[in-house]
Amino acid sequence: MDISRANSLSYEDFVNTFENVIEKAPLVAAAVWSHRPFANLSELEARIVEFIDKLPEEGKEGILRCHPDLAGRDLQRGTLTRDSQDEQSQAGMASLTPEETERMYRLNTEYKRRFGFPFIICAKMNDKAAILRKLAERSGNDLAKERKCGIDEVKKICSLRLRNIVLPDTQHKL
Amino acid sequence: MDISRANSLSYEDFVNTFENVIEKAPLVAAAVWSHRPFANLSELEARIVEFIDKLPEEGKEGILRCHPDLAGRDLQRGTLTRDSQDEQSQAGMASLTPEETERMYRLNTEYKRRFGFPFIICAKMNDKAAILRKLAERSGNDLAKERKCGIDEVKKICSLRLRNIVLPDTQHKL
Repeated sequence: MDISRANSLSYEDFVNTFENVIEKAPLVAAAVWSHRPFANLSELEARIVEFIDKLPEEGKEGILRCHPDLAGRDLQRGTLTRDSQDEQSQAGMASLTPEETERMYRLNTEYKRRFGFPFIICAKMNDKAAILRKLAERSGNDLAKERKCGIDEVKKICSLRLRNIVLPDTQHKL
Repeated sequence: MDISRANSLSYEDFVNTFENVIEKAPLVAAAVWSHRPFANLSELEARIVEFIDKLPEEGKEGILRCHPDLAGRDLQRGTLTRDSQDEQSQAGMASLTPEETERMYRLNTEYKRRFGFPFIICAKMNDKAAILRKLAERSGNDLAKERKCGIDEVKKICSLRLRNIVLPDTQHKL
Protein backbone atom coordinates (compact mmCIF):
# COMPACT_ATOMS: atom_id res chain seq x y z
CA MET A 1 0.00 0.00 0.00
CA ASP A 2 1.07 3.62 -0.29
CA ILE A 3 1.18 6.08 2.60
CA SER A 4 -2.18 7.65 1.80
CA ARG A 5 -3.82 4.24 2.05
CA ALA A 6 -2.05 3.70 5.40
CA ASN A 7 -3.32 7.10 6.56
CA SER A 8 -6.89 6.14 5.69
CA LEU A 9 -6.95 3.00 7.86
CA SER A 10 -9.08 2.77 11.00
CA TYR A 11 -6.98 2.19 14.10
CA GLU A 12 -8.08 -1.45 14.02
CA ASP A 13 -6.88 -2.00 10.44
CA PHE A 14 -3.73 0.03 11.11
CA VAL A 15 -2.84 -2.10 14.14
CA ASN A 16 -3.59 -5.32 12.25
CA THR A 17 -1.34 -4.14 9.40
CA PHE A 18 1.61 -2.82 11.43
CA GLU A 19 1.31 -4.87 14.64
CA ASN A 20 4.61 -6.69 14.18
CA VAL A 21 6.88 -3.99 12.75
CA ILE A 22 8.15 -4.02 16.33
CA GLU A 23 8.14 -7.71 17.23
CA LYS A 24 5.13 -8.69 19.34
CA ALA A 25 4.53 -5.06 20.33
CA PRO A 26 1.31 -3.94 18.60
CA LEU A 27 1.19 -1.23 21.26
CA VAL A 28 3.78 0.74 19.27
CA ALA A 29 1.76 0.81 16.05
CA ALA A 30 -1.38 1.46 18.08
CA ALA A 31 0.31 4.46 19.70
CA VAL A 32 1.71 6.11 16.58
CA TRP A 33 -1.71 5.98 14.88
CA SER A 34 -2.43 9.06 17.02
CA HIS A 35 0.00 11.00 14.79
CA ARG A 36 -1.62 10.23 11.44
CA PRO A 37 -1.67 11.47 8.73
CA PHE A 38 1.97 10.73 7.94
CA ALA A 39 3.50 12.81 5.13
CA ASN A 40 5.43 9.77 3.95
CA LEU A 41 6.91 6.46 5.06
CA SER A 42 9.88 8.27 6.60
CA GLU A 43 7.59 10.16 8.95
CA LEU A 44 5.79 6.99 10.02
CA GLU A 45 9.15 5.39 10.74
CA ALA A 46 10.37 8.49 12.58
CA ARG A 47 7.28 8.44 14.84
CA ILE A 48 7.95 4.82 15.76
CA VAL A 49 11.61 5.58 16.51
CA GLU A 50 10.59 8.59 18.59
CA PHE A 51 8.12 6.52 20.59
CA ILE A 52 10.77 3.92 21.38
CA ASP A 53 13.41 6.52 22.24
CA LYS A 54 11.06 8.15 24.75
CA LEU A 55 10.41 4.91 26.63
CA PRO A 56 12.14 4.56 30.00
CA GLU A 57 15.09 2.16 30.01
CA GLU A 58 12.93 -0.72 31.31
CA GLY A 59 10.53 -0.11 28.42
CA LYS A 60 13.39 -0.47 25.93
CA GLU A 61 14.43 -3.67 27.70
CA GLY A 62 10.79 -4.76 27.47
CA ILE A 63 10.88 -4.33 23.70
CA LEU A 64 14.03 -6.46 23.51
CA ARG A 65 12.44 -9.16 25.71
CA CYS A 66 9.51 -9.54 23.30
CA HIS A 67 11.96 -10.86 20.69
CA PRO A 68 12.76 -14.54 20.18
CA ASP A 69 16.23 -16.04 20.42
CA LEU A 70 18.15 -16.33 17.18
CA ALA A 71 18.22 -19.99 16.16
CA GLY A 72 16.40 -20.81 19.39
CA ARG A 73 13.46 -22.91 20.54
CA ASP A 74 10.83 -20.98 18.59
CA LEU A 75 12.69 -21.57 15.34
CA GLN A 76 13.01 -25.27 16.10
CA ARG A 77 9.35 -25.57 17.13
CA GLY A 78 8.04 -23.46 14.26
CA THR A 79 6.48 -20.94 16.66
CA LEU A 80 8.25 -17.81 15.41
CA THR A 81 6.21 -14.93 14.00
CA ARG A 82 6.21 -15.12 10.22
CA ASP A 83 8.46 -12.04 10.01
CA SER A 84 11.07 -13.60 12.29
CA GLN A 85 10.81 -16.96 10.51
CA ASP A 86 11.58 -15.32 7.16
CA GLU A 87 14.39 -13.19 8.55
CA GLN A 88 16.11 -15.97 10.50
CA SER A 89 15.83 -18.39 7.58
CA GLN A 90 17.30 -15.86 5.17
CA ALA A 91 20.30 -15.41 7.48
CA GLY A 92 20.89 -19.16 7.51
CA MET A 93 19.67 -19.71 11.07
CA ALA A 94 17.35 -22.53 9.94
CA SER A 95 20.22 -24.49 8.40
CA LEU A 96 22.92 -24.46 11.06
CA THR A 97 25.06 -27.53 11.62
CA PRO A 98 24.53 -29.26 14.97
CA GLU A 99 27.81 -27.70 16.15
CA GLU A 100 26.69 -24.20 15.11
CA THR A 101 23.30 -24.70 16.79
CA GLU A 102 25.06 -25.74 19.98
CA ARG A 103 27.37 -22.71 19.80
CA MET A 104 24.45 -20.31 19.19
CA TYR A 105 22.56 -21.84 22.11
CA ARG A 106 25.53 -21.51 24.43
CA LEU A 107 26.30 -17.91 23.41
CA ASN A 108 22.62 -16.87 23.57
CA THR A 109 22.28 -18.38 27.03
CA GLU A 110 25.38 -16.59 28.31
CA TYR A 111 24.19 -13.35 26.73
CA LYS A 112 20.73 -13.58 28.31
CA ARG A 113 22.19 -14.39 31.73
CA ARG A 114 24.46 -11.35 31.47
CA PHE A 115 21.93 -8.79 30.15
CA GLY A 116 18.44 -10.09 30.96
CA PHE A 117 17.26 -9.79 27.35
CA PRO A 118 17.99 -11.68 24.13
CA PHE A 119 20.67 -10.89 21.55
CA ILE A 120 19.03 -9.03 18.67
CA ILE A 121 20.54 -8.35 15.30
CA CYS A 122 18.94 -7.44 11.98
CA ALA A 123 19.30 -10.90 10.42
CA LYS A 124 18.56 -9.63 6.90
CA MET A 125 21.63 -7.40 7.05
CA ASN A 126 23.96 -10.12 8.32
CA ASP A 127 24.97 -13.62 7.34
CA LYS A 128 25.62 -16.53 9.64
CA ALA A 129 29.30 -15.82 10.14
CA ALA A 130 28.68 -12.15 10.93
CA ILE A 131 25.92 -13.03 13.40
CA LEU A 132 28.11 -15.47 15.30
CA ARG A 133 31.01 -13.03 15.35
CA LYS A 134 28.89 -10.09 16.57
CA LEU A 135 27.16 -12.19 19.20
CA ALA A 136 30.54 -13.07 20.68
CA GLU A 137 31.80 -9.46 20.37
CA ARG A 138 28.74 -7.71 21.79
CA SER A 139 28.62 -10.05 24.78
CA GLY A 140 31.58 -8.04 26.12
CA ASN A 141 29.66 -4.73 26.16
CA ASP A 142 28.30 -3.16 29.33
CA LEU A 143 24.53 -3.16 29.88
CA ALA A 144 23.81 0.40 28.75
CA LYS A 145 25.83 0.06 25.55
CA GLU A 146 24.32 -3.30 24.72
CA ARG A 147 20.76 -2.13 25.39
CA LYS A 148 21.40 0.64 22.87
CA CYS A 149 22.92 -1.84 20.38
CA GLY A 150 19.85 -4.06 20.67
CA ILE A 151 17.43 -1.15 20.20
CA ASP A 152 19.39 0.08 17.17
CA GLU A 153 18.95 -3.37 15.62
CA VAL A 154 15.22 -3.34 16.45
CA LYS A 155 14.96 -0.08 14.50
CA LYS A 156 16.73 -1.61 11.48
CA ILE A 157 14.39 -4.62 11.58
CA CYS A 158 11.41 -2.26 11.83
CA SER A 159 12.63 -0.22 8.87
CA LEU A 160 12.81 -3.29 6.63
CA ARG A 161 9.45 -4.63 7.84
CA LEU A 162 7.83 -1.26 7.15
CA ARG A 163 9.20 -1.35 3.61
CA ASN A 164 7.54 -4.72 3.10
CA ILE A 165 4.18 -3.08 3.84
CA VAL A 166 4.33 0.51 2.61
CA LEU A 167 5.86 1.60 -0.69
CA PRO A 168 9.08 3.53 -0.03
CA ASP A 169 8.74 7.24 -0.71
CA THR A 170 11.17 7.15 -3.64
CA GLN A 171 8.85 4.82 -5.52
CA HIS A 172 6.23 7.56 -5.62
CA LYS A 173 8.63 9.75 -7.51
CA LEU A 174 9.20 7.27 -10.32
CA MET B 1 1.87 -19.03 42.27
CA ASP B 2 3.16 -16.83 45.07
CA ILE B 3 5.28 -13.74 44.60
CA SER B 4 8.57 -15.49 45.32
CA ARG B 5 7.85 -17.95 42.54
CA ALA B 6 7.04 -15.02 40.22
CA ASN B 7 10.33 -13.38 41.23
CA SER B 8 12.26 -16.52 40.32
CA LEU B 9 10.99 -16.68 36.73
CA SER B 10 13.29 -16.03 33.77
CA TYR B 11 12.13 -13.08 31.69
CA GLU B 12 10.80 -15.55 29.13
CA ASP B 13 8.63 -17.40 31.66
CA PHE B 14 7.62 -14.12 33.31
CA VAL B 15 6.46 -12.67 29.98
CA ASN B 16 4.63 -15.89 29.09
CA THR B 17 2.87 -15.81 32.47
CA PHE B 18 1.94 -12.13 32.62
CA GLU B 19 1.78 -11.23 28.91
CA ASN B 20 -1.93 -10.44 28.91
CA VAL B 21 -2.44 -8.71 32.27
CA ILE B 22 -2.49 -5.67 29.98
CA GLU B 23 -4.46 -6.87 26.97
CA LYS B 24 -2.19 -7.77 24.03
CA ALA B 25 0.69 -5.74 25.50
CA PRO B 26 3.36 -8.24 26.63
CA LEU B 27 5.74 -5.29 26.42
CA VAL B 28 4.43 -4.07 29.78
CA ALA B 29 5.18 -7.31 31.64
CA ALA B 30 8.49 -7.55 29.78
CA ALA B 31 9.40 -4.05 30.98
CA VAL B 32 8.51 -4.42 34.66
CA TRP B 33 10.59 -7.61 34.91
CA SER B 34 13.53 -5.17 35.16
CA HIS B 35 12.26 -4.22 38.65
CA ARG B 36 12.15 -7.71 40.14
CA PRO B 37 12.23 -8.89 42.88
CA PHE B 38 8.83 -7.58 43.93
CA ALA B 39 8.17 -7.47 47.67
CA ASN B 40 4.59 -8.55 47.08
CA LEU B 41 1.77 -8.57 44.54
CA SER B 42 0.99 -4.92 45.34
CA GLU B 43 4.47 -3.87 44.27
CA LEU B 44 4.23 -5.78 41.00
CA GLU B 45 0.90 -4.10 40.31
CA ALA B 46 2.29 -0.68 41.29
CA ARG B 47 5.20 -1.10 38.83
CA ILE B 48 2.77 -1.87 36.02
CA VAL B 49 0.62 1.16 36.89
CA GLU B 50 3.74 3.34 37.07
CA PHE B 51 4.90 2.15 33.65
CA ILE B 52 1.53 2.98 32.09
CA ASP B 53 1.29 6.36 33.82
CA LYS B 54 4.71 7.37 32.46
CA LEU B 55 3.75 6.62 28.86
CA PRO B 56 3.09 9.64 26.64
CA GLU B 57 -0.59 10.23 25.85
CA GLU B 58 -0.33 8.40 22.51
CA GLY B 59 1.12 5.41 24.37
CA LYS B 60 -1.90 5.34 26.66
CA GLU B 61 -4.15 5.53 23.62
CA GLY B 62 -2.09 2.69 22.14
CA ILE B 63 -2.87 0.55 25.16
CA LEU B 64 -6.58 1.27 24.75
CA ARG B 65 -6.41 0.42 21.01
CA CYS B 66 -5.01 -3.05 21.76
CA HIS B 67 -8.34 -3.91 23.43
CA PRO B 68 -11.26 -5.55 21.64
CA ASP B 69 -14.75 -4.06 21.40
CA LEU B 70 -17.21 -5.15 24.06
CA ALA B 71 -19.71 -7.54 22.47
CA GLY B 72 -17.97 -6.94 19.14
CA ARG B 73 -16.69 -8.96 16.19
CA ASP B 74 -14.03 -10.83 18.18
CA LEU B 75 -16.64 -12.10 20.63
CA GLN B 76 -18.89 -13.22 17.78
CA ARG B 77 -16.02 -14.88 15.90
CA GLY B 78 -14.49 -16.49 18.99
CA THR B 79 -11.19 -14.63 18.47
CA LEU B 80 -11.00 -12.87 21.84
CA THR B 81 -8.10 -13.59 24.18
CA ARG B 82 -9.17 -16.11 26.79
CA ASP B 83 -9.12 -13.42 29.50
CA SER B 84 -11.45 -11.16 27.52
CA GLN B 85 -13.70 -14.08 26.58
CA ASP B 86 -14.19 -14.99 30.25
CA GLU B 87 -14.70 -11.39 31.34
CA GLN B 88 -17.17 -10.46 28.59
CA SER B 89 -19.13 -13.68 29.07
CA GLN B 90 -19.38 -13.13 32.80
CA ALA B 91 -20.80 -9.64 32.21
CA GLY B 92 -23.48 -11.09 29.93
CA MET B 93 -21.95 -9.80 26.69
CA ALA B 94 -22.15 -13.27 25.13
CA SER B 95 -25.90 -13.52 25.70
CA LEU B 96 -27.25 -10.18 24.49
CA THR B 97 -30.56 -10.05 22.66
CA PRO B 98 -30.31 -9.04 18.98
CA GLU B 99 -31.58 -5.59 19.96
CA GLU B 100 -28.93 -5.22 22.68
CA THR B 101 -26.21 -6.40 20.28
CA GLU B 102 -27.35 -3.81 17.76
CA ARG B 103 -27.37 -1.09 20.43
CA MET B 104 -23.85 -2.04 21.65
CA TYR B 105 -22.57 -2.03 18.07
CA ARG B 106 -24.06 1.39 17.38
CA LEU B 107 -22.77 2.93 20.62
CA ASN B 108 -19.30 1.35 20.22
CA THR B 109 -19.04 2.63 16.67
CA GLU B 110 -20.01 6.17 17.68
CA TYR B 111 -17.59 6.02 20.61
CA LYS B 112 -14.69 4.87 18.42
CA ARG B 113 -15.41 7.53 15.81
CA ARG B 114 -15.40 10.18 18.53
CA PHE B 115 -12.30 9.08 20.48
CA GLY B 116 -10.18 6.90 18.17
CA PHE B 117 -10.03 4.03 20.67
CA PRO B 118 -12.53 1.48 21.98
CA PHE B 119 -14.78 1.80 25.02
CA ILE B 120 -13.16 -0.12 27.87
CA ILE B 121 -14.77 -1.07 31.13
CA CYS B 122 -13.86 -3.70 33.71
CA ALA B 123 -16.59 -6.17 32.72
CA LYS B 124 -16.18 -8.23 35.87
CA MET B 125 -17.15 -5.24 37.98
CA ASN B 126 -20.23 -4.36 35.92
CA ASP B 127 -23.33 -6.09 34.64
CA LYS B 128 -24.95 -5.64 31.27
CA ALA B 129 -27.20 -2.79 32.32
CA ALA B 130 -24.35 -0.86 33.94
CA ILE B 131 -22.13 -1.35 30.88
CA LEU B 132 -24.77 -0.01 28.50
CA ARG B 133 -25.52 2.93 30.78
CA LYS B 134 -21.85 3.88 31.26
CA LEU B 135 -21.09 3.51 27.55
CA ALA B 136 -23.81 6.05 26.78
CA GLU B 137 -22.71 8.35 29.64
CA ARG B 138 -18.98 8.29 28.96
CA SER B 139 -19.51 9.00 25.27
CA GLY B 140 -20.22 12.58 26.34
CA ASN B 141 -16.79 13.09 27.95
CA ASP B 142 -14.00 15.06 26.33
CA LEU B 143 -10.99 13.18 24.95
CA ALA B 144 -8.60 13.75 27.88
CA LYS B 145 -11.17 12.74 30.48
CA GLU B 146 -12.23 9.68 28.55
CA ARG B 147 -8.65 8.55 27.90
CA LYS B 148 -8.14 8.67 31.66
CA CYS B 149 -11.40 6.77 32.27
CA GLY B 150 -10.32 4.05 29.84
CA ILE B 151 -6.86 3.72 31.41
CA ASP B 152 -8.40 3.55 34.90
CA GLU B 153 -10.52 0.61 33.69
CA VAL B 154 -7.43 -1.05 32.16
CA LYS B 155 -5.80 -0.88 35.59
CA LYS B 156 -8.83 -2.51 37.25
CA ILE B 157 -8.82 -5.30 34.64
CA CYS B 158 -5.08 -5.76 35.21
CA SER B 159 -5.56 -5.94 38.97
CA LEU B 160 -8.10 -8.77 38.66
CA ARG B 161 -6.04 -10.64 36.07
CA LEU B 162 -2.96 -10.42 38.31
CA ARG B 163 -4.99 -11.92 41.18
CA ASN B 164 -5.85 -14.85 38.95
CA ILE B 165 -2.13 -15.59 38.60
CA VAL B 166 -0.43 -14.54 41.84
CA LEU B 167 -1.80 -15.22 45.30
CA PRO B 168 -2.92 -11.95 46.91
CA ASP B 169 -0.60 -10.80 49.69
CA THR B 170 -3.23 -11.30 52.41
CA GLN B 171 -3.39 -15.02 51.67
CA HIS B 172 0.24 -15.36 52.73
CA LYS B 173 -0.67 -14.14 56.18
CA LEU B 174 -3.36 -16.73 56.81
